[in-house]
Amino acid sequence: MPLPQLTQASAPLTREITATDEFGQPQAVQIPAERDLTVYVDKREIVTLMTLGAWPEGLVLGYLRNQRLVQSPDEVASIMVDWDVQAAAVQTRAGIADIEARTSRRVVTTGCGQGSVFGALMDDVGSIQLPPARLTQAQLYSIVNTIRLQESTYKSAGSVHACALFRGEEMLVFVEDVGRHNAIDTIAGWMWMHGTDTAQTDSNAPFVFYTTGRLTSEMVIKSAQMGVPLAVSRSGITQMGHQVAEQVGLCAIGRATHRRFLCYTHPERLAFEQPPSRAAPL
Amino acid sequence: MPLPQLTQASAPLTREITATDEFGQPQAVQIPAERDLTVYVDKREIVTLMTLGAWPEGLVLGYLRNQRLVQSPDEVASIMVDWDVQAAAVQTRAGIADIEARTSRRVVTTGCGQGSVFGALMDDVGSIQLPPARLTQAQLYSIVNTIRLQESTYKSAGSVHACALFRGEEMLVFVEDVGRHNAIDTIAGWMWMHGTDTAQTDSNAPFVFYTTGRLTSEMVIKSAQMGVPLAVSRSGITQMGHQVAEQVGLCAIGRATHRRFLCYTHPERLAFEQPPSRAAPL
Repeated sequence: MPLPQLTQASAPLTREITATDEFGQPQAVQIPAERDLTVYVDKREIVTLMTLGAWPEGLVLGYLRNQRLVQSPDEVASIMVDWDVQAAAVQTRAGIADIEARTSRRVVTTGCGQGSVFGALMDDVGSIQLPPARLTQAQLYSIVNTIRLQESTYKSAGSVHACALFRGEEMLVFVEDVGRHNAIDTIAGWMWMHGTDTAQTDSNAPFVFYTTGRLTSEMVIKSAQMGVPLAVSRSGITQMGHQVAEQVGLCAIGRATHRRFLCYTHPERLAFEQPPSRAAPL
Repeated sequence: MPLPQLTQASAPLTREITATDEFGQPQAVQIPAERDLTVYVDKREIVTLMTLGAWPEGLVLGYLRNQRLVQSPDEVASIMVDWDVQAAAVQTRAGIADIEARTSRRVVTTGCGQGSVFGALMDDVGSIQLPPARLTQAQLYSIVNTIRLQESTYKSAGSVHACALFRGEEMLVFVEDVGRHNAIDTIAGWMWMHGTDTAQTDSNAPFVFYTTGRLTSEMVIKSAQMGVPLAVSRSGITQMGHQVAEQVGLCAIGRATHRRFLCYTHPERLAFEQPPSRAAPL
């Protein structure tokens, strides 16, 4: 299957500015970059994404995937990003049928924490089948520790969200962006470029999606759509996220720091360690 | 000026679920509610908002305002929210001209951290005039402390963003929602319902916008559009947020916790205390 041709238009991820601290003194601080990138599909403008710019081609591919404008990476011939004109030019092999109707549908469902692609995504929930998976508590702790040790824009500049994809405790890709939706979309793009969707997975080393952000409905659905049966967050879960995770069989784990966590849904996908003996009340 | 008639359709903000902790034991935890609310303007569906549901009518009014679909609250006759059908029915007094074109424009600019209403908002930046304002460091500390003491869904359930509007150190309104854009939109709605936009302000007790989220371009622009000359966050700032704040003359303050903060832009709007004497090197 031919993969899309991609440019490699990354850009500086941070910028130094001078702020004034609480003593009225100047302080040099790093802040994350934030660029607007307008996406054209076959010369038709479809969206402007605000992004950190770490891997814009992967972001655009994942965006098209998660918006379900393309069904398979071989439908895309090339994605050419040019920061000089802040544009990503996507060329498809055979065009996108009904692109007008399919992008205008977003009007009612898109927004930031405001509907987003929720309507379209929810249509799919019934058909999602997640693979068998069982993660051990030791693997989970290893994932959390790997994230803790990861060098990141967050550590140097803050104000970004990170997502990562693991197979068992092995980190496959780590992505940061100014919006967590961009970060997960970039992971969706990465999975397509690396053929992981169709790869056989060992149920004892399942795919695990990690996010620093909350497990909202959209994050849970996107994770499930990518065939990833476990999602881990250092943050919590919202009611819709909980409901969707229950429904699709996704194991949602939150508040994961050091050796603590809460498994919100489908704990059968987690192999708990023998619980430490607790002093029983007399 | 007649204000819109509003229902009072609030709903429970949290829900108790049973999670499994790291010892494999069940734990009752509170999670924030998250509801989809489809907004109809004069019977035309325009968007589905995912919301905590604390003040849906204010959210819808502020959404229409920040999307610039209405220019003044008296253009809206009523907003009727009915959770049974998860709908907000907005009736305008005279209709919205070109609503079709104006909502379809969002296609290219809306998204979650993904363009959002950025394009449309940026058009306005040049015309924004913020009022004179000077906040003292003591007022800033008082604001941070008020937020710290505020009872909140965040404290009981986590996973929500809070915004608040202050006048000097007096908190006028505190709003939480699952998305920070919803929270600021609700504040925009509140300001319209309370006529604060047109109120005379004392430059020594200026309006201050507080957010738990990052100061992104969109948050800065929305704050400026509401005529609020200072924005405070416990989090940081992105490059676009920084650039827009510089440009519109907004004082952006981040990392505000206890008695620490960083003033990113326009420190002339902040009256620094006499700096404590520092031991000078010999």
